[in-house]
Amino acid sequence: MEFAELIKTATVEHVQLSCPGLPPVKGTLCVTSHHLLLSSQPGGHGEPGAEELWLLIRNVDAVEKSVQNLGWYQPSRTNRSQQETRVVNSLGTITLKCKDLKVLQLEIPGMEECLNIASSIEALSSVDSVMSMYPFFYRPRSMKLTDGWQLYPLQHYYQQITALTGAWRLSCVNQEFTICASYPPAVVVPAAVDDNVLKKAARFRQGGRFPVLSYYHKKNGTVMLRSSQPLIGPNKKHCQEDQLLLSACLAGRERGFIIDTRSAQAAKQARVMGGGTEPRSSYPCWRRLHRPLERGRPLQESFMKLVEACNDPSLSMDRWLSKLESSKWLAHVKGALSTACLAAQCMEREEAGVLVHGAEGTDTTLLVTALAQVILDPDCRTLTGFQGLLEREWIQAGHPFHSRCTRSAYSHARLKQEAPVFLLFLDCVRQLGRQFPLSLQFSERLLLVLFEHTYASCYGTFLCNSEKERCLCEVKEKTHSLWSWLNQPSERQDLLNPLYTHNPLVIWPSVAPQSLQLWQGLFLRWIRSSHYLEEAWAEIQCLVTGCEEVPGEHAGHAQCHSPPDAAPPRTLTETGSKG
Amino acid sequence: MEFAELIKTATVEHVQLSCPGLPPVKGTLCVTSHHLLLSSQPGGHGEPGAEELWLLIRNVDAVEKSVQNLGWYQPSRTNRSQQETRVVNSLGTITLKCKDLKVLQLEIPGMEECLNIASSIEALSSVDSVMSMYPFFYRPRSMKLTDGWQLYPLQHYYQQITALTGAWRLSCVNQEFTICASYPPAVVVPAAVDDNVLKKAARFRQGGRFPVLSYYHKKNGTVMLRSSQPLIGPNKKHCQEDQLLLSACLAGRERGFIIDTRSAQAAKQARVMGGGTEPRSSYPCWRRLHRPLERGRPLQESFMKLVEACNDPSLSMDRWLSKLESSKWLAHVKGALSTACLAAQCMEREEAGVLVHGAEGTDTTLLVTALAQVILDPDCRTLTGFQGLLEREWIQAGHPFHSRCTRSAYSHARLKQEAPVFLLFLDCVRQLGRQFPLSLQFSERLLLVLFEHTYASCYGTFLCNSEKERCLCEVKEKTHSLWSWLNQPSERQDLLNPLYTHNPLVIWPSVAPQSLQLWQGLFLRWIRSSHYLEEAWAEIQCLVTGCEEVPGEHAGHAQCHSPPDAAPPRTLTETGSKG
Repeated sequence: MEFAELIKTATVEHVQLSCPGLPPVKGTLCVTSHHLLLSSQPGGHGEPGAEELWLLIRNVDAVEKSVQNLGWYQPSRTNRSQQETRVVNSLGTITLKCKDLKVLQLEIPGMEECLNIASSIEALSSVDSVMSMYPFFYRPRSMKLTDGWQLYPLQHYYQQITALTGAWRLSCVNQEFTICASYPPAVVVPAAVDDNVLKKAARFRQGGRFPVLSYYHKKNGTVMLRSSQPLIGPNKKHCQEDQLLLSACLAGRERGFIIDTRSAQAAKQARVMGGGTEPRSSYPCWRRLHRPLERGRPLQESFMKLVEACNDPSLSMDRWLSKLESSKWLAHVKGALSTACLAAQCMEREEAGVLVHGAEGTDTTLLVTALAQVILDPDCRTLTGFQGLLEREWIQAGHPFHSRCTRSAYSHARLKQEAPVFLLFLDCVRQLGRQFPLSLQFSERLLLVLFEHTYASCYGTFLCNSEKERCLCEVKEKTHSLWSWLNQPSERQDLLNPLYTHNPLVIWPSVAPQSLQLWQGLFLRWIRSSHYLEEAWAEIQCLVTGCEEVPGEHAGHAQCHSPPDAAPPRTLTETGSKG
Repeated sequence: MEFAELIKTATVEHVQLSCPGLPPVKGTLCVTSHHLLLSSQPGGHGEPGAEELWLLIRNVDAVEKSVQNLGWYQPSRTNRSQQETRVVNSLGTITLKCKDLKVLQLEIPGMEECLNIASSIEALSSVDSVMSMYPFFYRPRSMKLTDGWQLYPLQHYYQQITALTGAWRLSCVNQEFTICASYPPAVVVPAAVDDNVLKKAARFRQGGRFPVLSYYHKKNGTVMLRSSQPLIGPNKKHCQEDQLLLSACLAGRERGFIIDTRSAQAAKQARVMGGGTEPRSSYPCWRRLHRPLERGRPLQESFMKLVEACNDPSLSMDRWLSKLESSKWLAHVKGALSTACLAAQCMEREEAGVLVHGAEGTDTTLLVTALAQVILDPDCRTLTGFQGLLEREWIQAGHPFHSRCTRSAYSHARLKQEAPVFLLFLDCVRQLGRQFPLSLQFSERLLLVLFEHTYASCYGTFLCNSEKERCLCEVKEKTHSLWSWLNQPSERQDLLNPLYTHNPLVIWPSVAPQSLQLWQGLFLRWIRSSHYLEEAWAEIQCLVTGCEEVPGEHAGHAQCHSPPDAAPPRTLTETGSKG
C-alpha cells in the first residue's frame, strides 16, 4: 500500500494541539492514510472525558516546523553525551495551515518524531492521484453510494425549458466527450441547428466549447449562452457554422450582446495565440462589450494577499485598509457582480440575448453566468435550486475544480493552475445575501461548507476537472455525493435561512464600493471567535422553528467524538468555531 | 417676531422635492419658523392622496442653490423683453444637505422665489439662540412637559452605590454651579473627603472639574473616576488637596491607573498653557498611561472626509478604500474602543482604580468612561440603563452638545467648536452591538435616533452645553424630554433588539482593525436603500412578538401625514428610508 510508505511515524504520545479560540488539547497523535487523529486519552475512545479530534490531511495547505531545545547546556565540543541529551529533550512545533484558512499548532516531544510527522503530513497531503483521495475510501454507514448523484440531472432541468418553448433542444452530440472534453454529454442548443453544425462550430472554439444554452429567462424568453473564445487567429479566420449557431440562438430577436470577460486589447492580442473575439462583420446582430475580470495567477495572489492581511495581528487601521485595498479582492468582487448585473440587465431590461465568454470559458465565464442567474431567477435562490445551479453551471460546465483548488492561500508550493474563481462566486453570493437578507433560502453556512469542500472533502462532488474525468475515475460509482449529505434533514435544517421569504423579483444589488464588505464569516472565521454571531443565528432559527433548544451546530461538543464515518472533516471545524 | 423677518417668501407652489430612494413629490412649499412643509395637494391635509412632508429647518446643515434658464433664447442686447422672459422662465434648484446626512433637492419655479427660499432657510437654520429653538415651541398633545426629565436622577443612581459601600458620598458642593460650571449640582466623592478639600482641588483642575466618581464596579468594588487636567503649569505647581482626594479614591487599594487621553508629549506641552498631567512624585500610587485620542478639529475633519467619500458615487474600489483609510474615522473608532477596553481591564483584571482625563475632560474623557461602562456593566446595556448612562456620563457630565453639534458634516460655515465625539461613541456602541448581537437590549435604531436628535431635535434633552446653561434657559420647564417620547410603549417597541438576552459577563470586543467595519446603517443610510435590511429586522421582530403584521415603522407611509405635533423630525426620515 502506497500510503504506508509515506507514514514515517504513525503514533506519538503527549502531543499538544492548539487552535485559536479553543483550549489546547493533549493526547496521542496518530497519522493514518487520510487523517490526523488526536485522542485526548490514549485508546480512550468512548470513555468519559475522552476527546478525538480529526483532521483530513488533504485539508493541509502548508506545513511549517520548528524545533526548540528544552534542556539548554553550554555547548561543549568535548562532551558528546550532553549534546545527545539536548536532542532527546527537544520539543518540535508543527504549524499546519489548512486550506479552509484555519491554522493549527502541534507540539511534539522529540525532534525526530516531529520531523517524521511533518514529512508524513507533507507527503500525504500532496498525493495528487484523484483515485487515492479520501472520497474513494469514505464509507459512512448511513448513506448509499448512488444517492445524490442523480439529484440534479441536466436533462431534467432542460426538459423544463423544452416544455416552455420549441426553440431549444437537448443534443447528445458530446455523448462520448469527443466534441468537447470539458462539456457534459448533453447540452442544449437551438432546435434549428443540427449536430453537424455543432461539430463544425466546436472546431472553431477553444477546447471545443461551442455556444450552448446557460439560462432561459422564463419571464421574457431571452437566453444567456456561454462558450469559449472563437479561434479567429492571426489570419482572421471565420466559421459559417459558428455564425449560423449564434444567429439561431437569437431566435428572431434583433440583437444580442457578447460579454467578453477580457479587455478589448487582451481579446485582440489573443489572436496571436490563435484565439480572438467575434468581429462585428461576421456577427452583425451581436454587440460586443468588454468587461475585464481577473482570473488565474492574479486572482490567486489577491486571495493570498487578503488572507495574509487578515491573519496579521500587528496591523494598524491604516495599514489594514491599505493592505485590504492592495489585495484587490473587493475590487474583484465588485467586478464580478457588476458584470453579472450587466448580463442580467441585457436580458431583463434590453430583452436581448447574451453570450458570455473569456478565453477558455471555464472560469470568469461561469462566474458571470452563474451569478446572473442568482440575481435574475428566484428558483436559483432556493437551497435545492442553488445546488442545481452549482451542478449545472460549475461542475458539469467544466470548471476545473481539481486544478483550481489543489492549493489554497497558504501554500508555498509552486502554484500552477490554482485560482479561487469559485470562492469569488461564493463571496459575491454572500454579498447578495447581505443586501437581501430575506431572498436567499440558504444561509452563509452553506457557502462556508461549499468553500471547505471544494478544497478538501470526503465527498466526490468537486473531484476532477470535468465530467469526462469523473467518468474515467468512476467518481459517481465509487464516492458519495456532497448533495446527499447536505440534503439529509438534519443537515438541511442548519443550512436554511430562517428569514427566507419567496421573492419573485430580480434582486439588483448595489455594486457601489461603499456597499461591498469583507466577508468576515469566511476570512476572519478562525481569527476571531464567531461564537456570538453563531449564537444570534441559532436564536433566530429557534424563533422560527419555535423550538426551545439550540439546534444542530450549537448543541455542544458532541460531534467531536464522532468516528470518521460520520463526516470527519467537520470535527475540527466544529471544535474550532467554539469560543 | 424675529422669525417673520427672516422669512422672505413663505409659500411657493409647484415645487418638486426629490430625495434618494423616494419618488419625487410635487406640491406647495411653506416656510414656517421651524419647518419646511411640502403639501402634495394645496390645503389638502387629510384628503385622500394628500401628502405632507415636514423638515425641521434646524436639521439643514448647508444650502446650495443653482438657477437654470428654461426658455433659452439667443442673447440679444437689443431685445430687453426676451431677457425678462428668460428670468421668469427660470427654475431654481436648492440642495439641502441635512445634519442627519440626508440630501434633499427642491426645484422651485422662479429665480426670485428660489433665492428667497434659500436665504430664508439659511437664516432660520443659523439662529443660534437656544431659547429660539423649536423645543421651546413644540407642544405635542399627548405629552406633559415635566415627564421624562426626572427619569434618570443622578441621586437615584448614586444611592445604589452608597447602599453598597460607605466609602462614597453624594456632595452638593456644586449646588450653585460655583465650583465647576460644567458639573451637575451633585457629584459622588470619597466619603473621607470633605467639601472644603473639593473646593481647593477644583481650583487645581481646568474648569474646576475635580476628580469625581464615574462608575463603581460592583463585582470587585473598583472605581472609575474622571476629571480635567491638573493645572501644573510651567512652574510645576502641586495641590495637596488634589493629592488627598485621589489618595482617598483608591480607598486602601495599592495602586491606580491614570489614563491620559493625550500623548505624553502633548500632556507635557500643556504645561506651557497652565495645564499638564499628574507627576509620579506627587501621586506615587498612580501609574500614568497615555492613549492619545483625537478630538476637536481633526475629528470633525475625519467625519467630513468620511461622509464625502460615502457620498461619492464615482469612486472605484481602490479609491473608496483609500479614501476610507485617509478619513481615519475607523482608526478613531479603534482608538476609542481600545482605550475603553484598557480602562475596563484595569478595573476588571488588575482590580485597580482608574482616573480618566484629557485636557478639558468633557470629550474624549467621557467617550472612554461611557464606553468602558457599556463593556463592563450589563445594566448599561439595557434600553433604560443606556439612557441613564447617556444622561449621567454625557449630558449631566457636561459634554458641550450645543457647541459640538451646531454643524454636521456638510457645513461650509466657519467651524468653531464642532466635533462628532458623541457620534464616535455611538459608532463604537454599534460595533459592540455587531460583535455581540444578543447582548444589547436596544437596536441600531436607537443609535440612529440619538444621532439625529443631537444635531436637530424637537426635544430639549441635547440643548445647551451644561446643566448650568440648561437651568438658565429653563430647559426642563419649557421643553419636552427626548426620553419621555422614546419611552412611550409604541416607540420603545421599535427600539428594542428582538434577540436580546441578559448577558452578565463583560463583553470584550475585538479591536483588531479587521473586525471593525464602516457603520453602513448610518453613513450609507440615505445613499442606498436600506429597505431590505429593515424588512429583515421587522421580520425578526415579528417572530419574537409572534404578531402577523409588520410593526410600527414598516406599516406604510402613514406617518408621513402626521402634523408637526407628532414628532415631525421623523417624517422625512421615515419617507426617505422606503425603497
